[in-house]
Amino acid sequence: MGKHLVVFQPSGRRGDFDAGTTLMDAARSLGVDIETICGTKHTCGQCKVQVQEGEFAREGIASSMEHVSPLNPDEVKFLKRVKEPNMRLACVAEVQGDVVVFIPERSRAGRQVVRKAAKELTVPVAPAVKKYYVELVPPTLHDTLGDAERMLDALRDVYGLDKLVIDSSVLRELSKRLREGEWKVTVTVWRGTDVQRVEPGFVDEIYGIAVDVGTTTVAAYLTDLKTAKVLATESMMNPQVRYGEDVMSRIAYTLEKEDGRELLFATIRDGLNQIFANLATNQHLDKEDISEVVLVGNTAMHHLFLDLDVDYLGKAPFPPVIHHSVDVKARDLGFTALHPATNVHVLPNEAGFVGADNVGVLLAEEPYHQDENLLIIDIGTNGEIIMGNRNKLISSSCATGPAFEGAHIKFGMRAAPGAIEKVRISQGGADVTCQLIAPANRREVIKAKGICGSGIIDAIGEMFRSGVLMRNGRFAKDLKTPRLRNGPDGPEYVLLWADETDLGVDITIVQADVRALQLAKGAMYSACKLMMNRLGITQVDRVILAGAFGSYIDKVQALTIGLFPDCPLEKVYAVGNAAGDGARIALVNAAKRDEADWVAREVEYVELTVEPDFERAFMEAMHFPHMKDKFPNLEAALGRAV
Amino acid sequence: MGKHLVVFQPSGRRGDFDAGTTLMDAARSLGVDIETICGTKHTCGQCKVQVQEGEFAREGIASSMEHVSPLNPDEVKFLKRVKEPNMRLACVAEVQGDVVVFIPERSRAGRQVVRKAAKELTVPVAPAVKKYYVELVPPTLHDTLGDAERMLDALRDVYGLDKLVIDSSVLRELSKRLREGEWKVTVTVWRGTDVQRVEPGFVDEIYGIAVDVGTTTVAAYLTDLKTAKVLATESMMNPQVRYGEDVMSRIAYTLEKEDGRELLFATIRDGLNQIFANLATNQHLDKEDISEVVLVGNTAMHHLFLDLDVDYLGKAPFPPVIHHSVDVKARDLGFTALHPATNVHVLPNEAGFVGADNVGVLLAEEPYHQDENLLIIDIGTNGEIIMGNRNKLISSSCATGPAFEGAHIKFGMRAAPGAIEKVRISQGGADVTCQLIAPANRREVIKAKGICGSGIIDAIGEMFRSGVLMRNGRFAKDLKTPRLRNGPDGPEYVLLWADETDLGVDITIVQADVRALQLAKGAMYSACKLMMNRLGITQVDRVILAGAFGSYIDKVQALTIGLFPDCPLEKVYAVGNAAGDGARIALVNAAKRDEADWVAREVEYVELTVEPDFERAFMEAMHFPHMKDKFPNLEAALGRAV
Repeated sequence: MGKHLVVFQPSGRRGDFDAGTTLMDAARSLGVDIETICGTKHTCGQCKVQVQEGEFAREGIASSMEHVSPLNPDEVKFLKRVKEPNMRLACVAEVQGDVVVFIPERSRAGRQVVRKAAKELTVPVAPAVKKYYVELVPPTLHDTLGDAERMLDALRDVYGLDKLVIDSSVLRELSKRLREGEWKVTVTVWRGTDVQRVEPGFVDEIYGIAVDVGTTTVAAYLTDLKTAKVLATESMMNPQVRYGEDVMSRIAYTLEKEDGRELLFATIRDGLNQIFANLATNQHLDKEDISEVVLVGNTAMHHLFLDLDVDYLGKAPFPPVIHHSVDVKARDLGFTALHPATNVHVLPNEAGFVGADNVGVLLAEEPYHQDENLLIIDIGTNGEIIMGNRNKLISSSCATGPAFEGAHIKFGMRAAPGAIEKVRISQGGADVTCQLIAPANRREVIKAKGICGSGIIDAIGEMFRSGVLMRNGRFAKDLKTPRLRNGPDGPEYVLLWADETDLGVDITIVQADVRALQLAKGAMYSACKLMMNRLGITQVDRVILAGAFGSYIDKVQALTIGLFPDCPLEKVYAVGNAAGDGARIALVNAAKRDEADWVAREVEYVELTVEPDFERAFMEAMHFPHMKDKFPNLEAALGRAV
Repeated sequence: MGKHLVVFQPSGRRGDFDAGTTLMDAARSLGVDIETICGTKHTCGQCKVQVQEGEFAREGIASSMEHVSPLNPDEVKFLKRVKEPNMRLACVAEVQGDVVVFIPERSRAGRQVVRKAAKELTVPVAPAVKKYYVELVPPTLHDTLGDAERMLDALRDVYGLDKLVIDSSVLRELSKRLREGEWKVTVTVWRGTDVQRVEPGFVDEIYGIAVDVGTTTVAAYLTDLKTAKVLATESMMNPQVRYGEDVMSRIAYTLEKEDGRELLFATIRDGLNQIFANLATNQHLDKEDISEVVLVGNTAMHHLFLDLDVDYLGKAPFPPVIHHSVDVKARDLGFTALHPATNVHVLPNEAGFVGADNVGVLLAEEPYHQDENLLIIDIGTNGEIIMGNRNKLISSSCATGPAFEGAHIKFGMRAAPGAIEKVRISQGGADVTCQLIAPANRREVIKAKGICGSGIIDAIGEMFRSGVLMRNGRFAKDLKTPRLRNGPDGPEYVLLWADETDLGVDITIVQADVRALQLAKGAMYSACKLMMNRLGITQVDRVILAGAFGSYIDKVQALTIGLFPDCPLEKVYAVGNAAGDGARIALVNAAKRDEADWVAREVEYVELTVEPDFERAFMEAMHFPHMKDKFPNLEAALGRAV
């Protein structure tokens, strides 16, 4: 009996296993955590996973139901109420062929650490939705004016609102609401024109939700629209990951599958409905209490949650369907967890590869109001770059691939408990110290399961600094340490020995991992350089790292490996989830939406792959930079405790 | 075995039958025509009827499935694909108890004669929707502007359209349409702001549909929006009739049944979808080719097709939910037979009992531009009255009941083949001549089945003129003719003897029929009189009879029985379906919609039941007028050939 390839999604971890290995054992040996309470005794049903069927061209393997053992009677009682097809218990199902296994969010033991926290906003609170209280004179036989006009006349007389239109869904319940409130009602008006809700009596509370739909993570902020305070945050892995980890593979999915676009739309729609419902329920609100939603996302996510055509986003010259911001009723997006008349505002896109999330970053950082030349890098699965100041702003994007997120790295994993997030290596490479992501109360007991994105930059930066790696990314040949060795995949460097890990195997960085990082950082660095050429500048005044990942990478290591052009260390800032901040800004201040539409058209998108110097710049940027030029006091800069 | 009451809907015909009588036989003996091809041999399946279950409080009888014989194997093959519940073949199912039977439109042998034909309009052609052709420059790597902006920029540059918003459903297919048309497209724009459709290539044709949703009849006009010409007319009985013949009984239905409003909405929505689909299909158009729809209806119909609350329309002080015109997307009304982005414009209501159909009449007749004092009467199941001129317009409504439509009259029937539509009676009542509704090629063979609304006015006018009836509506006591006799329901007058009819029984006018007409005409006449008092006038200059019924009644007979106040005969006009004309006017000329909104608020609604003189005026108006005062030359006026 041969070995079979097993790939776990969404992490992308893979390994070869003997036929008969349970999916649970396979997962464990790869550091993929699957929830279990009973300890594989087949009694808790927590370890539900989905065996994905069909050809997985991108993965290079085919999978089918016969590639796992037949359904066992033990599983049936746990699976009979499950709606998704091809679900199995990981502790029961055994490998019988090459197989791709998807682990749903609820079955993941190490839930993702939500790194998209909300910072305080300084923007004036002036949302698009506003509530107005009116007291009406009830109709009589001598005054039979219709309910709508009775209310609209009062709103005009008291508040000067003379352009109001009542949404059809509000009209349907208007008569009841007026009488429930004994002709005293609170009316929610959007942008001074659209009546979106009528509530009996006086109501002061008003809420909205800002959502950053990332390729990997969706983060939503329930916001008090009187104070701009975030009352609750909810996040989930973007449920579309099962159809592709990155933007391009999801676009490819819509092209390959006839109902692909429909499926991707339905998937994120359902996910967002769940988030909306959770946020409302947890705050004891009704769904009608959510008065507006603002969404951002990169252009592909934007198109997919609006159910737009992504066909041409994936083909040169990559035009988006629309740049301008979109206002659409919740019902027209299938947002059943909201009142049907609730407005959903979607920030504008800059270009095919620079989306509404990046406009969110612009709103949050306002480079268009600065004298200094800013370099804003939003590092996600795609890298999006803005450069310039009040005189001129250009943007571009580069395909960094998922390496920065820990995917396609041999021991890569998400930023979850057990992930190596910081690394220090002694000169010559003999000693390694690793810091793990761990809840405060479990620091002592937790052992390493893999390396997350920021850990990879740390590890490779340290390997280069300590001499394990050469400038061209190859391993040093003459280093005398058992950590540097020839493994099954060529030369590799051992970060942690088997007994220091939770996996029972050595955690290593292999040559392919270094190459993946070189490609990613080369793409980013060369893009920045070409943009500087475009603007005719040799230096940027400030570097802003946006995105959750940007907050966690070590600025020194980022400069060590040459992730972006040189800049004084104190001028490099991490601003967290600036896209989400931008969404919140647009949620609490309607005027900022006009600013967003303006700036989205002002920013000039530069397609770098057609620049004459593109290839040369990219090849050069693959190398690691000369150390000495960079940090005369590197040891001091890195001197913080690990 | 006793007799059982059988009521056929929508005609309301009823009779007592022995247990074991087939529904077909019961129907025939009442003159209710049910389609059959096989002649009750159980082989054609044409005679499908619906046995209605539950309490029929309004009808005073209860019905249940056990009140008809069990399902026979013969019926199964014809009924298995039928979606409606409780369908039976009339030639098989036998009476076993009191039962209400609904005959669907498709099973009615004598299809209603569509009397709502379209007249030519004189209004300028300037519809709300317009098509614009643009040729775009395709995107390149140096010009990656989004598809939407590319199109909008061209529309702005070429046509000055700078406030366009693209409907979300159009955005979803925009990229494909642009490429199908090789960047040459025709864009449908509503009121200069809303992009509702993008078609590949150059398209010149543009169509709309105007619909008059009557309580009894729905009439729709497919209109060429370049010429205002009606290309096709489609009509059907309002499918809501199964839930009540008149407005009040439908409102009552929504109050009695929890899902009543939902059901009534779904019923008319489905009916309208069928009409839209038929009109498009018959003209070889796609549903997307219908660029706009304008709807009118009385206030109750208006509320029911917009899915608004009718609870308060049925309770004093009867305010409507909304007066103002409504624009709503087809998708928000469940009009799946239209493109989801198609606008549906609904004309405004004047008051709780004077609806958008009446505003249609106003648009068609423009009393607000006249010096003469007009009396406009729209005679349907409800009577709606407008009076006045450019200085002041008042409106009111009166509950005429369904007598004018032939319902609740012993031998009443719809205006269908076999209905008596004109009657002449010799002085003293001995001789009667009747004219029947009949297709031209069947005049010789068709025999009478009942009396339609205009026939009833004719018959009772003639009975009064000839001395059969006294001014108070009672039968003359001393008349020597076998036609006047005592029947099972009291005194009655024989119009046709059994052998002259298709029923095999004498067709008579009974005292209750006269009373029903007196109530209806008394309500109408007294309303007009009270309105004249209000305006301080003693005479109206012109009387306009709107509505299909108004076109078919004999003006002289209407004055004979005192349907409305005296007016020189040559000043009484029938204008046909003016409500439908108004809908067509608003469809082809958008500016007329603003005029409609203005006039709907200008017209003062007068609630007559609270006028101090109401009761006295009504009692007086029940009597027939003095003949001699009225027509010195009556015989000449009636002298047209029957």
